[in-house]
Amino acid sequence: MWLRIGCSITFDVNVTTPFILMLRPRNGIHQWIARESYTLKPSVPAIEYTDNFGNLCQRLVAPPGEFTIQTSADILTSDSIDVHFGAPFEEVQNLPDEVLTYLLPTRYCESDKFIEMGQEIVSGVLPGYDQVAAITDWIRNNIRFNSDSSHFQMSAVEVNIQREGVCRELAHLGIALCRGLCIPARMVVGYLHELKPMDFHAWFEAYVGGRWYTFDPTQNRPKGGRVTVAYGRDAADVAIFNQFGPALFPREMSVRVELLTSAPE
Amino acid sequence: MWLRIGCSITFDVNVTTPFILMLRPRNGIHQWIARESYTLKPSVPAIEYTDNFGNLCQRLVAPPGEFTIQTSADILTSDSIDVHFGAPFEEVQNLPDEVLTYLLPTRYCESDKFIEMGQEIVSGVLPGYDQVAAITDWIRNNIRFNSDSSHFQMSAVEVNIQREGVCRELAHLGIALCRGLCIPARMVVGYLHELKPMDFHAWFEAYVGGRWYTFDPTQNRPKGGRVTVAYGRDAADVAIFNQFGPALFPREMSVRVELLTSAPE
Amino acid sequence: MWLRIGCSITFDVNVTTPFILMLRPRNGIHQWIARESYTLKPSVPAIEYTDNFGNLCQRLVAPPGEFTIQTSADILTSDSIDVHFGAPFEEVQNLPDEVLTYLLPTRYCESDKFIEMGQEIVSGVLPGYDQVAAITDWIRNNIRFNSDSSHFQMSAVEVNIQREGVCRELAHLGIALCRGLCIPARMVVGYLHELKPMDFHAWFEAYVGGRWYTFDPTQNRPKGGRVTVAYGRDAADVAIFNQFGPALFPREMSVRVELLTSAPE
Amino acid sequence: MWLRIGCSITFDVNVTTPFILMLRPRNGIHQWIARESYTLKPSVPAIEYTDNFGNLCQRLVAPPGEFTIQTSADILTSDSIDVHFGAPFEEVQNLPDEVLTYLLPTRYCESDKFIEMGQEIVSGVLPGYDQVAAITDWIRNNIRFNSDSSHFQMSAVEVNIQREGVCRELAHLGIALCRGLCIPARMVVGYLHELKPMDFHAWFEAYVGGRWYTFDPTQNRPKGGRVTVAYGRDAADVAIFNQFGPALFPREMSVRVELLTSAPE
Repeated sequence: MWLRIGCSITFDVNVTTPFILMLRPRNGIHQWIARESYTLKPSVPAIEYTDNFGNLCQRLVAPPGEFTIQTSADILTSDSIDVHFGAPFEEVQNLPDEVLTYLLPTRYCESDKFIEMGQEIVSGVLPGYDQVAAITDWIRNNIRFNSDSSHFQMSAVEVNIQREGVCRELAHLGIALCRGLCIPARMVVGYLHELKPMDFHAWFEAYVGGRWYTFDPTQNRPKGGRVTVAYGRDAADVAIFNQFGPALFPREMSVRVELLTSAPE
Repeated sequence: MWLRIGCSITFDVNVTTPFILMLRPRNGIHQWIARESYTLKPSVPAIEYTDNFGNLCQRLVAPPGEFTIQTSADILTSDSIDVHFGAPFEEVQNLPDEVLTYLLPTRYCESDKFIEMGQEIVSGVLPGYDQVAAITDWIRNNIRFNSDSSHFQMSAVEVNIQREGVCRELAHLGIALCRGLCIPARMVVGYLHELKPMDFHAWFEAYVGGRWYTFDPTQNRPKGGRVTVAYGRDAADVAIFNQFGPALFPREMSVRVELLTSAPE
Repeated sequence: MWLRIGCSITFDVNVTTPFILMLRPRNGIHQWIARESYTLKPSVPAIEYTDNFGNLCQRLVAPPGEFTIQTSADILTSDSIDVHFGAPFEEVQNLPDEVLTYLLPTRYCESDKFIEMGQEIVSGVLPGYDQVAAITDWIRNNIRFNSDSSHFQMSAVEVNIQREGVCRELAHLGIALCRGLCIPARMVVGYLHELKPMDFHAWFEAYVGGRWYTFDPTQNRPKGGRVTVAYGRDAADVAIFNQFGPALFPREMSVRVELLTSAPE
Repeated sequence: MWLRIGCSITFDVNVTTPFILMLRPRNGIHQWIARESYTLKPSVPAIEYTDNFGNLCQRLVAPPGEFTIQTSADILTSDSIDVHFGAPFEEVQNLPDEVLTYLLPTRYCESDKFIEMGQEIVSGVLPGYDQVAAITDWIRNNIRFNSDSSHFQMSAVEVNIQREGVCRELAHLGIALCRGLCIPARMVVGYLHELKPMDFHAWFEAYVGGRWYTFDPTQNRPKGGRVTVAYGRDAADVAIFNQFGPALFPREMSVRVELLTSAPE
């Protein structure tokens, strides 16, 4: 399916502020970008680099005043996601080198604290994909999905206590539980078609049966229509913007995902 | 200056053919891409990866029949290039690790055969930027620039014998002469505003005084209005397309570079 | 100074256990390894890879029974560390791309929770090296250094509550405080000459004035005689061993650092 | 089998000379280094980095006078190499990204000039491993192996004209012929047990059936007892030493490979 995705973010900048943005989807195995625009108003110099996870990051310094970032892209992505019950657990010694980093505990995924809980949740379940599916179901049934992201970001430990969280917090819990079982898991930030209410979205991927699979505890069925903007170990790695200096929140932010009826010309 | 650059390339594909394309400029220290489109007709799955030089490469398999690639981008780039006579030669031991690869001989830049010739050309010239400028002048004065690229690609040795070549061949000679003097040099492929006749263009960069500087033996003055698509050691690294299987040449190819009068909306 | 460093670690392995070891120092700007041995008993196949931080990691599977790792190396290192009061704070927009990852919060360095505390500690101090020195002094004066590492690893938040910690926990606090001030900071694990009691050691580095400087809250003066084994964002990245499966602790572990009176033959 | 390998290289240095050495084997999937020494006399500061191909490179500046490099290592390696007739040709579109660079022509492997010749040699042969074996046999039967490396290095084109060459030149021809058939091929430099006369050795690897296989046109049977020091695209990437400034050849060089009867203690 072809999706037209994009966002508009406006800040009221008080003092000259360095930003790192992570708003450009990359062409990858699952998505092809046919058209893209990325506009800064006012137009300031920006430099792009690739971080350790392969994400495209844009560095810039915003001057005082209103500062707006607008992105738009037409992207071909799958209308379904792969579901593969039975895909086996991979022994750690057989994992590719580059996947190992996704086994370690991180700021928001304190996997060292979730070993027992994970083992209880997957008790009796076939090791591998089925375990991750059981974890995802457990989160869906036990942690309330909340779309109000006005609070500070919670880690897996915190969301497990609060019993509710936004999409990225549910993903934190899923990731921490997987890693506690020695299943590599990573955070994904991007867009989801028909998400309600529309916003940026976050889910997670787990590595079983020799590849990454998509899991989303906020959705009741395995939905496609996803556009990945960034991969990381947890939300700390994949902030769509990092700003340095006095705290600064967007004055306005809008996100859109539209279905295109045909390939863009 | 804002440039709208792009190309359209059409192949008549006889048998299913794997391609690697290198047609997407990256955001970098010298250019910012505000809008971009990249269309394949027919629309086939494509995967993007980053090569050892940081270039964005697209892999795909073209089916039999007419196959067209169209790109277009609005890019902010400088209207001049930095000129810095006096920028000093960097001792090899002081070069950054990642620059060392650009000292070695490569397929089309047999720098091991240009040591004496380079020393003659720069005899008496201040080591560093001035040497590269002397090499560039020498090429401009001694090798005829030829825009007919219908022949097979020539290496520095061959172009030095033929005494004429297309832009990338003049760059090969410049690179080989620099490396023979222990000055790191690399190939750049991209677009140049007001190039006549309009086509893809190639030039080279040399590392002196702690950074890369642009040199273009095909131009009589240090012209800006450049968009970089790819960096590499020589033309073998930066082919805008590599196709595997029976030889296949574009049936049609057009390149455009237009000046925009303002930033794209 | 030439140091002979090494360790011996013995596990009683119950079930076949995958390990990732991080025990090989690398040649770097600050150290040169003239002789090295790395022995596994029993001798099992091991594969080495380089992680995202440039560390050499060895992957292997230990069979049931006694399993011993022995390393030894003769290394030239500096007998002092650079101290540079006045080295300035680097604005985020001027940091090299590869340093940016060391600004983010991580599992054991919840820097997002230390912004105010850091600002209080460095109140009135010159931005840059002097701030990091003030943070290091503050830790030295307020957090008790404890060499008993029998408890679970503590994060910066936890060590700040407990008011005591082992070397790596003091480093966590230092790193979190630096990052809260937008100063990149990273964990270092290695060996320190004359450490008492002798053990593996951990300290941190902060990036000011265009380079990394060494800080060690456990030492009263800027001591040299250091051998770096691994760099990372916090202790999660630089475990000298990661073992997967049922928890397993070394039955015996010894560490040695001896001064050599001359270069090894 | 356990091998003790090593070398001693002495230069008479006239003027201060920057060197890049590539003399340290890495632990890899095929070899494990239990003991290693690397001595510079006089002892000068050296810095190690990893190049684009994963090789460990040491940078240093040799002072005027006698300068000696001595290495020694005890390494576990296989006493045989994998032979796998029938391993299939991999379509370019299925190759891993990081393998693609080994399809391109390079300084000493002008694969663009060997397409027809390669097709003749492998006419009627099963695509994949069998083709590379046929190429290796053809070189063994048609190009005289010569152990006198006193001449300048020859490229594949030159060795094909001369009809003789040293080990690395035979490898150049093998690599160029493979790449001309779209089979990725790379240069390997290292040690070979029982090589006569003993010296550094070079051979090549080709990527078929989803992995790299070893081929050595200088040996009549598939011999093990190999230690890899460096991988690259051709000899330009894997010089055991690169020296910058006036040409400088070793005054003395000795290489040794001994069989150890047991694992080193």
